[in-house]
Amino acid sequence: MRMYDIIKKKRDGGELSTEEIGFFIRGVTEGTIPDYQISALCMAIWFRGMNMRETCDLTFAVRDSGEKFTASEVQGIRVDKHSTGGVGDKTSLVVAPIVASFGVKVAKMSGRGLGHTGGTVDKLEAITGFRTTLSDEEFLRQVNEIGLAIVGQSRQFAPADKKLYALRDVTATVDSMPLIASSIMGKKLAADDDCIVLDVKTGSGSFMKTAEESRTLARLMVEIGKNAGKKMVACITNMDMPLGNAIGNALEVQEAVETLRGRGPADLTAVCLMLAGRMLSLAGMGTPAECEALSRRAIEDGSALGKLKEMVAAQGGDVGLIEDPSRFPRAKCSYEVFSPAAGYIAHTDTEAYGLASLALGAGRNTAEDVIDHSAGIILAKKTGDFVQKGEKIATFYAASRDLFAAAEERFLSATQLSREKPEEKPLVYDIIE
Amino acid sequence: MRMYDIIKKKRDGGELSTEEIGFFIRGVTEGTIPDYQISALCMAIWFRGMNMRETCDLTFAVRDSGEKFTASEVQGIRVDKHSTGGVGDKTSLVVAPIVASFGVKVAKMSGRGLGHTGGTVDKLEAITGFRTTLSDEEFLRQVNEIGLAIVGQSRQFAPADKKLYALRDVTATVDSMPLIASSIMGKKLAADDDCIVLDVKTGSGSFMKTAEESRTLARLMVEIGKNAGKKMVACITNMDMPLGNAIGNALEVQEAVETLRGRGPADLTAVCLMLAGRMLSLAGMGTPAECEALSRRAIEDGSALGKLKEMVAAQGGDVGLIEDPSRFPRAKCSYEVFSPAAGYIAHTDTEAYGLASLALGAGRNTAEDVIDHSAGIILAKKTGDFVQKGEKIATFYAASRDLFAAAEERFLSATQLSREKPEEKPLVYDIIE
Repeated sequence: MRMYDIIKKKRDGGELSTEEIGFFIRGVTEGTIPDYQISALCMAIWFRGMNMRETCDLTFAVRDSGEKFTASEVQGIRVDKHSTGGVGDKTSLVVAPIVASFGVKVAKMSGRGLGHTGGTVDKLEAITGFRTTLSDEEFLRQVNEIGLAIVGQSRQFAPADKKLYALRDVTATVDSMPLIASSIMGKKLAADDDCIVLDVKTGSGSFMKTAEESRTLARLMVEIGKNAGKKMVACITNMDMPLGNAIGNALEVQEAVETLRGRGPADLTAVCLMLAGRMLSLAGMGTPAECEALSRRAIEDGSALGKLKEMVAAQGGDVGLIEDPSRFPRAKCSYEVFSPAAGYIAHTDTEAYGLASLALGAGRNTAEDVIDHSAGIILAKKTGDFVQKGEKIATFYAASRDLFAAAEERFLSATQLSREKPEEKPLVYDIIE
Repeated sequence: MRMYDIIKKKRDGGELSTEEIGFFIRGVTEGTIPDYQISALCMAIWFRGMNMRETCDLTFAVRDSGEKFTASEVQGIRVDKHSTGGVGDKTSLVVAPIVASFGVKVAKMSGRGLGHTGGTVDKLEAITGFRTTLSDEEFLRQVNEIGLAIVGQSRQFAPADKKLYALRDVTATVDSMPLIASSIMGKKLAADDDCIVLDVKTGSGSFMKTAEESRTLARLMVEIGKNAGKKMVACITNMDMPLGNAIGNALEVQEAVETLRGRGPADLTAVCLMLAGRMLSLAGMGTPAECEALSRRAIEDGSALGKLKEMVAAQGGDVGLIEDPSRFPRAKCSYEVFSPAAGYIAHTDTEAYGLASLALGAGRNTAEDVIDHSAGIILAKKTGDFVQKGEKIATFYAASRDLFAAAEERFLSATQLSREKPEEKPLVYDIIE
């Protein structure tokens, strides 16, 4: 088998065989296929696409390129939720405790933030003492004892994807449906959960800019997961504005805790209940509507918040911060952003909001950057709200006042005002089962 | 400027600016753009193509990537003929002396053979003593004194093309019109002739398999050449069978000499007269028809053969071989190939004929292979001829009998017999001016 023939076949619109895709991914993993042939094939795939069979084969080859977690190590049903990444997306911190409070296992391996998107591991590390690195034994014991653990990815999952993504990133071949789907699902399937709820973020703050693109990607990923024997559902949710009002690690944990207390922002609460309901439903706890009602009850009776505290305690975090979020360390400096004019907030470039928060110290430009956990943004106004000229629309938090000017400029130019009230967009565009 | 943006722009169907193309080719030449980005762009160009402006810019950037020859170093008008490569194509050995016999300068830098195609430099080296490497001073002096010199490429012409071609060759991006045209014309224009006749070979023995593809490529190259201020014409000629009957270096020189004596095969003679006529016509010697008549006269009166002898003498070759081609060293072994059945030769896979000759020792698989100048094939029958079962269709020449079996198998399976006489194809499909 020759890589040249594989490139030519795909270039000419052919269907790659299981063996050819396996040869390709093995060569990527072992470093025996040169980068220039990998990037040429990625570009050919960008143009020609892949059918469902090819995409599944690619995903499974990526999944099998490294270590795996095996579901059998956990007692009971394991459910996960995976978001394609957004701004202010703290749903994992809310839905994982809700679901675990019903005895459904959540053994979550999460990522760190990069660019405009945040990462659950970074958020948890805003809790003093919280350990996101557990040994395999600690992780499994905790999941089996309290039903919930969230850690960083320590296992070498899907190394082929790491190599492929690095090349795609510099050759303009990232935005290809089969390549995106196999990248996300290859890693996800390596964690071997029984049920997976995908949260496909859509809009200015996410990778997928339109609901139609998101639907295509969601359908693809749901199909791949089913082919791998998983129970799957994908929710297409709105990321044209941040979810909730907080952007930044400690700020988001505080908002998540408020949400588990029943005092969270309406949009965040609604999306979390929907996602938790879908997770519980996949795990066999009832219909989605019944499970959403269960989830609401877990907030109202405090059992979900109790589960979060159990996890924080188990992983060495300061439970006092969860009991009284006002005790979270504050940023040294804060700054209020006022509206330069009157009008409705018609649209926000949510990615730019994420980058403004990054500029305040809350995020990373490169994987090596150090995060300021207390930095970030609290939105006072969001899309659809009317603001007077000079009215506060946000508060910035950072370690130094020097960071405010650039972030403010970015933030304001990402905020469009209009005389007319914008049409309201749905929070959830679609559910793909 | 970032290579990423250039790849993305072309991928999305955009038109690259002169600056972007210049940035790309400079990066290729200087090694500052990684191979994986070069191959990704080549694949995007394969899919999206390039318009005439982009293709010209790419060609000129390739031309300017290395050393150049300057026409002003030669007194008088310089004409060249360039073939896209075929099997048994010894036209340069015939047309160059014809044209030079009229005082039009031919200062030719030729290539070596690779794969199924031969190269003029290899053919000339079949003449004992012939030097294909001259110093710049020797080369210019000879051109100015006798009007004709043919040497190998010693100058570092178009190094960007060398790098690009090596990558295209292993990433399935060779067969892209703008990339082919800019590769051929980038090198050709670096030699800075005043007039260029392109011989675009078409059919089973050449890179372009159909006349329509050849027309497209020819139009593109003629346009590029005109944009560079050159007088241009392209001839689309038939390479569905070898030109003449000889394949292999010494065998082809002998056939070329016979042709200059007026005793060459009809197809070879006709194509040579047409090409020489076009070259002379571009140089201002009259209409193509008038110049073809002049060319015929140069054969009849011996002046063209005389010019070849002058060149061979000037470059140290044994003129006795030209005077009596039967004195060329013979291959140690010969072998007659007989037809396994009766019928018309309906079609020949001419590339396979070239590879059979290569297998006999006449060609190179890699640039390092050593050529056996006396090896090759003399065809006794060609497409359209009727053969009886057991009638001789070819004679093979090689240094060892061990080489005959594999070459015969390749040769016979490339020769299609049929009951019906095949329709005759034209020798010249089209002239693009």
